[in-house]
Amino acid sequence: MEACNREIVARMQSPVPLIPQLGAHLVAAGGKRLRPLLTLASARLCGYVPSAQNQRHVGLAACVEFIHTATLLHDDVVDESTLRRGLASANAVFGNKASVLVGDFLFARSFQLMTADGSLKVMAILSAASATIAEGEVLQMATQNDLSTPIEKYLEVIHGKTAALFAAACRVGAVVADRSEQEEAALDAYGTNLGMAFQLVDDALDYAADQQVLGKTVGDDMREGKITLPVLAAFQAGDEAERAFWLRVIETGEQTDEDLPHALALIEKRGAIQTTIDRARVYAEAAIEALSIFPDSPIRQLMIDAASYTVSRVN
Amino acid sequence: MEACNREIVARMQSPVPLIPQLGAHLVAAGGKRLRPLLTLASARLCGYVPSAQNQRHVGLAACVEFIHTATLLHDDVVDESTLRRGLASANAVFGNKASVLVGDFLFARSFQLMTADGSLKVMAILSAASATIAEGEVLQMATQNDLSTPIEKYLEVIHGKTAALFAAACRVGAVVADRSEQEEAALDAYGTNLGMAFQLVDDALDYAADQQVLGKTVGDDMREGKITLPVLAAFQAGDEAERAFWLRVIETGEQTDEDLPHALALIEKRGAIQTTIDRARVYAEAAIEALSIFPDSPIRQLMIDAASYTVSRVN
Repeated sequence: MEACNREIVARMQSPVPLIPQLGAHLVAAGGKRLRPLLTLASARLCGYVPSAQNQRHVGLAACVEFIHTATLLHDDVVDESTLRRGLASANAVFGNKASVLVGDFLFARSFQLMTADGSLKVMAILSAASATIAEGEVLQMATQNDLSTPIEKYLEVIHGKTAALFAAACRVGAVVADRSEQEEAALDAYGTNLGMAFQLVDDALDYAADQQVLGKTVGDDMREGKITLPVLAAFQAGDEAERAFWLRVIETGEQTDEDLPHALALIEKRGAIQTTIDRARVYAEAAIEALSIFPDSPIRQLMIDAASYTVSRVN
Repeated sequence: MEACNREIVARMQSPVPLIPQLGAHLVAAGGKRLRPLLTLASARLCGYVPSAQNQRHVGLAACVEFIHTATLLHDDVVDESTLRRGLASANAVFGNKASVLVGDFLFARSFQLMTADGSLKVMAILSAASATIAEGEVLQMATQNDLSTPIEKYLEVIHGKTAALFAAACRVGAVVADRSEQEEAALDAYGTNLGMAFQLVDDALDYAADQQVLGKTVGDDMREGKITLPVLAAFQAGDEAERAFWLRVIETGEQTDEDLPHALALIEKRGAIQTTIDRARVYAEAAIEALSIFPDSPIRQLMIDAASYTVSRVN
């Protein structure tokens, strides 16, 4: 992971000073490096042995993180966010223009890293995931402010914007270890289900967490009129007055300071956080089940624990 | 070229309706398809023979256009443009968010097209060009409103934002025809120099052309405080009063309705359009010279004519 962090910093270099400056801001902001960790863990699970000669896993893990960082930069512009992981977001510090363009640079850089790796299979996986992410983001935009969005469409959105890259990050681990299609598919399933669980919990936290823990403002999703499961569940289970409330705040976007506490109370009343977490748990269990074809090992146990932990983030 | 247009439309398809909708807007807006034409012409010049089995040139030409279209979508967001090729720009019709995200989709799609082609060499060329374009755009942003920008830095900006993709489009033509490094380099030089000439002329037209012909508003660059050669040349050759004028309109951005006619008069007085065109002509001549290693042929003559025509767009 240290080698991967070094690679990330090294590959952000550019003769154009603003690029490493903005890159340093992103690196300083930290982030969990969850996606590159998935690539490294999956490779290890598949018996991949790194060596001085074989450092493919490092470049590919960095590549996965670059794709993720590029989409974060563009997301923050699209969502007009001002906080990211508890710090001022890059668009708030450097402006939207810089975020769009440096995002493009990181995206291009990720493809250079893939090309340097040289596996057409890896490129097909990661370029398809990149297209799916963009489709998920566009679909999310299209569902914004629309409470008639079916839950299936919401699941399609989070599959695109989150689960697709989790799946690709894991699958790439099997590819560098040169394992069977069956093992690739198992790791893809692990990543997909883990990503779904992760995003469901993230969406629950937006109506449940305390800002300090989350590193983002509670209620951001509501303010943006974003359609997530906590809102859909509370809306669908609500009585007439509750539905009128949700229609006003989410569809018309007319919001006052008292709306967030009221929304949290309605979500609590209708058990909508629990509904969301229950769904997340089903995905986490499917993720764990997908690992059953691999023999038990410390790394396998770690990946199982990661899936369990994902769901336990919300109390 | 028709096959390439069909490929462009086909590869814009997505289950997310907004993507083909925005794609149709871009296709309807037309555009000269200059960059895919360069790929097709370069391949032909190198003796590439298309066949029912061999359609690589079509996919790669579409790929080059996708990269270009993605950067246009993001440019228009960054520049807050409202017109593109004489029609409402995509961001004006669909919003900035859609333009950012569909740009990302097209960029990802271009990498899928490259992966489908399967040549690591092509991928290295096009992914490096994509990174260089983003660097050029960031550098352009960093020079905005700054009249102390050296002409060399301006040339670096237009190399990044325009010439790099022209060069890559041409070089890819030599690669699909499996020609020598010398021929690849010659086509790269042709593309680079043509791209420089093209952008210089484009920047001259922003202070010279009539809006109907240009399909964009004259004076856009001035309104945005963009640093281009016509302005740099007029500023550097100007007397004290002229320099004060340029500092006000470009650096502070304080502009009135009378400023554009006055700016055009100063540019005329200092021969700054001519300075710009003279530079463009030197690049166009270098582009033509780069083709001298190829035997004479109708396609070579067409590429020579294209370079000459580029400079003759301004009277």
